[in-house]
Amino acid sequence: MVEEKKPDIGITVKKSEDFSEWYTQAILKSGFADYAPVKGCIVFRENAYAIWEKIQQIFNEKIKEKGHKNVYFPMFIPESLLRKEAEHFEGFVPECAWVTIGGDKELAEKLAIRPTSETIIYQMYAKLIISWRDLPIKLNQWCNIVRWETKATKPFLRTREFLWQEGHTAHATREEADKEVMEILGIYKELIENYLAIPVLVGKKSEKEKFAGALYTTTLEAIMPDGKALQMGTSHNLGQNFSKAFNIKFIGKDEKEHYVWQTSWGISTRLIGALVMVHGDDHGVIVPPRVAPIQAVIVPIFYKEMERERILEKAREIYDRLRSYGILTVLDDRTEYTPGWKFHDWELKGVPLRVEVGPRDVEKNQVTFARRDTFERVTVKEEEAVEAAKKLLEEIQSNLYNRAKKFLEEHITTVKTYEKFKKVLKEKGGFIRACWCLSPECEEEIKEETGATIRIIPFNKEEPFSNCIYCGKKAKEVVYFAKAY
Amino acid sequence: MVEEKKPDIGITVKKSEDFSEWYTQAILKSGFADYAPVKGCIVFRENAYAIWEKIQQIFNEKIKEKGHKNVYFPMFIPESLLRKEAEHFEGFVPECAWVTIGGDKELAEKLAIRPTSETIIYQMYAKLIISWRDLPIKLNQWCNIVRWETKATKPFLRTREFLWQEGHTAHATREEADKEVMEILGIYKELIENYLAIPVLVGKKSEKEKFAGALYTTTLEAIMPDGKALQMGTSHNLGQNFSKAFNIKFIGKDEKEHYVWQTSWGISTRLIGALVMVHGDDHGVIVPPRVAPIQAVIVPIFYKEMERERILEKAREIYDRLRSYGILTVLDDRTEYTPGWKFHDWELKGVPLRVEVGPRDVEKNQVTFARRDTFERVTVKEEEAVEAAKKLLEEIQSNLYNRAKKFLEEHITTVKTYEKFKKVLKEKGGFIRACWCLSPECEEEIKEETGATIRIIPFNKEEPFSNCIYCGKKAKEVVYFAKAY
Repeated sequence: MVEEKKPDIGITVKKSEDFSEWYTQAILKSGFADYAPVKGCIVFRENAYAIWEKIQQIFNEKIKEKGHKNVYFPMFIPESLLRKEAEHFEGFVPECAWVTIGGDKELAEKLAIRPTSETIIYQMYAKLIISWRDLPIKLNQWCNIVRWETKATKPFLRTREFLWQEGHTAHATREEADKEVMEILGIYKELIENYLAIPVLVGKKSEKEKFAGALYTTTLEAIMPDGKALQMGTSHNLGQNFSKAFNIKFIGKDEKEHYVWQTSWGISTRLIGALVMVHGDDHGVIVPPRVAPIQAVIVPIFYKEMERERILEKAREIYDRLRSYGILTVLDDRTEYTPGWKFHDWELKGVPLRVEVGPRDVEKNQVTFARRDTFERVTVKEEEAVEAAKKLLEEIQSNLYNRAKKFLEEHITTVKTYEKFKKVLKEKGGFIRACWCLSPECEEEIKEETGATIRIIPFNKEEPFSNCIYCGKKAKEVVYFAKAY
Repeated sequence: MVEEKKPDIGITVKKSEDFSEWYTQAILKSGFADYAPVKGCIVFRENAYAIWEKIQQIFNEKIKEKGHKNVYFPMFIPESLLRKEAEHFEGFVPECAWVTIGGDKELAEKLAIRPTSETIIYQMYAKLIISWRDLPIKLNQWCNIVRWETKATKPFLRTREFLWQEGHTAHATREEADKEVMEILGIYKELIENYLAIPVLVGKKSEKEKFAGALYTTTLEAIMPDGKALQMGTSHNLGQNFSKAFNIKFIGKDEKEHYVWQTSWGISTRLIGALVMVHGDDHGVIVPPRVAPIQAVIVPIFYKEMERERILEKAREIYDRLRSYGILTVLDDRTEYTPGWKFHDWELKGVPLRVEVGPRDVEKNQVTFARRDTFERVTVKEEEAVEAAKKLLEEIQSNLYNRAKKFLEEHITTVKTYEKFKKVLKEKGGFIRACWCLSPECEEEIKEETGATIRIIPFNKEEPFSNCIYCGKKAKEVVYFAKAY
C-alpha cells in the first residue's frame, strides 16, 4: 500500500504581505501555469489558455468586422532579412534565439526565431502590393514569439516564449495609417477595460521607449497592486521606415509610385498575468465574468446519502436552465470531494459565481449564490435563478472594474519636485504625473537613478504645471512615469 | 507615369495534364499560400488560414464536449528530454531543428524545436498525476511544428514548419486508452468526410509505419487525383511506453501504484492541401460549403451607370437576407473590376456559390445562382433565395463528397500477384488491396522495389484471398498498399 500525498490546496501567503510569492502560488495552484523544463519558459495550462481563447474570440470578431484577415507566416527569419531595417535589427538582435542546425547539418545562414514578424511579413507585402487597388492590406496572426530574456522571467509577464497576436497593415496615406493605429488602440482599450476589467492609461511612448523601427508607438498601461506599471498592448505607426527598407511601393491613382504607410500592433498572454495580479485575492484568482470560460459552478450539498439523488436532480435542473440561457455553467458532481473542498478549489480557479444546492434549498425551492469577488451570499427563488445569475455576473464584472479603477486613481500622484518624485516612487509607487523638458538625457538620468521610465505621454497635451522635474528647465510635456514590469 | 503590371489571373495548365504545376498555381493564385524566404517553409495566406480556423472551431467543439481542454506547452525541448524514450528519439532526431544560441550566448544544452510534444508534455504529467482521481487527463494544443525535411517539400503537404493540433491523454486502463484512440479517430473521420468532403479509408499502421514510441497507430488515408495516398490524421495508443520512460504513475483505487496508459493524436494543415487537390478544378480551388469562410458571393451586374444604384440596392437587400439566415455571404461591390473579372477571381478562390444580380433579375424579382462545382446556373424568385441557397450549398457539399467517393472506389484495386501489383501501381495508382504474410522483410522489399507502402491494415480483419503478394507464403492479413505523399 502506498501513502497518498494529499495535494495542498490554497495559497499560503497573503497578497498584501508577499505579492511575488502570492502571484507564483496563485498561478501554479489555479491550473493557470506550470514551470517547464526549459529555463524561462512556462506551460500555459488549461484555465489560463481558456481565457486566451476568449481573448482571441473577442478580438477576432472585432477586427474581422473591420476587414482584417488572419494568416500565418513562418517563424524562421533569416539573419539577412532581419538586418534590412537597421534600427529594428539593433533593437531585437540581442534577444534572438538562433537555429543553427537542421537535421544533422549546420545551416549556411542562421535563422532567428521570430521576436516579431515585421521583416518576414513585409518582404511578402513587397510582392503582393502593386497598385492602389491592393490597399489597404490588413493582416493579423496569432502565434508564438521568442525573446531570449536575460532579466529574471515571470510567468505570463516575461518569459522566453509567449503567445500573442500581431497585426500588420499597409495603407496609401499617413492619415489612414494614423487612423488604423488609433482604431486598434480603441479595440484594445475596450477589450482590456470592458472584458478584462482592467482600467488603463493610454498615450504615446517617448522616442526612447518606442518600438524599434517605428515612427511612433501608442500604448496602454495598467497599474499592478505592487505599484508597478504593466504595458498591456502597443499599436505602432511604422511610417515609411519599413516600406523603404523593403521596397514596398504601389502605383497610386495618380499613376506615380509611392511607398506605403504601415502599422503594426500586438497584445500578448501577458494580459492573463495582469488579470491574475489585478483581481486575485488571498483565495486565488478571480476571473471577470465576460472572459470566464466557466461563469458559474453548481455545488450540490448533501449530508445524508438518502438526500443525494433528490439534490442532484435539482442541481441538474438548475444546470440545464442556466446553460440554456447561455450562462457558462459547470455542475461539480464529483463524489470523491466534499462540498467544502470544492468551494476552495473553484475559488482558487476564479469562477465568479458559485451556486449552492442543499437540502434547505430544495425544500424551499430556492438556490443560494455566492459571489467570488465579495463572498456575499444571496438566496433567490428557483424560478428567478437565471435572472439573478445574470445580474450578479454583471455586478461582479463592474465591481472588479470599479475597484481596479479606484486603485488606479489612487495611484496617480502629481509631483513638482524630483525629491517628491523619488519619495512617492519609493513609498507608494504607481504612476507619477510630472513635467518634462523632452530631453532624452533627463529621461535616461531619471531611469538610472530611480528605475522609473516614461510610461505614457497623454494624447491630449496637458499644460505643464512646473519646470522639468529633472533639469529644472522649461517643461514641454506632462508625462506619466512609473517603474514597470 | 509607371506602367502597371496587370496581375495574371487564372491557372494556365489543366489539372488532368500537369497536376503538380496545377497544384502550385492553384494555391498561389487563390491566396492560399505563398513561398517564404526560408527554404521549405510557406506563408499560410488568408484564404487557407480561414479554413484552418473552421477546422479548429469544428474540432474544438467536438473535443470540448468530451471534456478535453486546450493548453500550450513550450516549443523548446532539451535534447536530454527528447532522449528519454529511445524509439521516439531515434524516430525524430534526424529531422529536428536545433537552437544552439540564445542572445549572444552558446547554450549549454541544445534545444530541439518540437517535432511533436510527447516528451515535454509527459514530464508534466509525471508531476500532475498522483491518484486515480487525477485521471483521465485529456489535453490538446494547437501549435506550430518543425520537421527539417530533406525530401522535396510541397506546400501544405510537407513543409519544414506547419500547424497542427496534438492531443495527449492519460488513462487508468488500456481499455480506456483504446476507446479514446477510436473515439478521436471517429471525430477525425467525421470532420474529414462530413465537412471537408474527403472520403477516407481507416485502419491500423504496420509495425514499420507506426508512430515512433507507440503501441499501435491508427490512421485515415485519402487518395489524391494523381493516385497517391495521403495520410490525413493519426491516433496512437502509446501503451505504457512513455509512462515507463517518464515515470508517470498513479495510485489506484486498489491503493497500489500503476503506470498510466496514454494516447496521442493529430491532424495538420496538410488537410488544406488535400482539400485543394481533391476538389479543385481548372478554374481553381473549390471549398466545400461547410468549411467555407465565404459560402456565397454576390456580384452585381450593370451595363449602364444609370442602372447602378438600383442594382446595388437589390444586391444589398439580398446580402442582408442571406446573412440574416446565417449564410456566410460577401457582396463584391468593388467598382474597379468588371463582373467577368470578379467571376474568375471568386472561382479561383473556391467560393461555392455565386449570386448574380443583373438588370433582368431586378426587373423580374429574381436572382441567379451559379454553382462552383458544376457551373450550373439556377434562377429562382427573390423570396425563395434563402431556401434555394441553403439547398444548393447542401447539394454542392454532397456532390463534392460523392465525386471524391466515386474516385476513391475506382482507385481500390484487388490484386493476387506481384506482377499485377506493379502494373496497377504504375498505370493507375490508387490503393492496392493485397495479401501479406506480416513479415517486415516483404514490406521493406516491396517499398524498395515499387515505392509503395502499407497504408492501412483494416480494423475488420478480412479473409486472405491469396498467398503473400511478395514471398508467396501463407498470408495473414489483407492490407492496402499505395504510393504516398
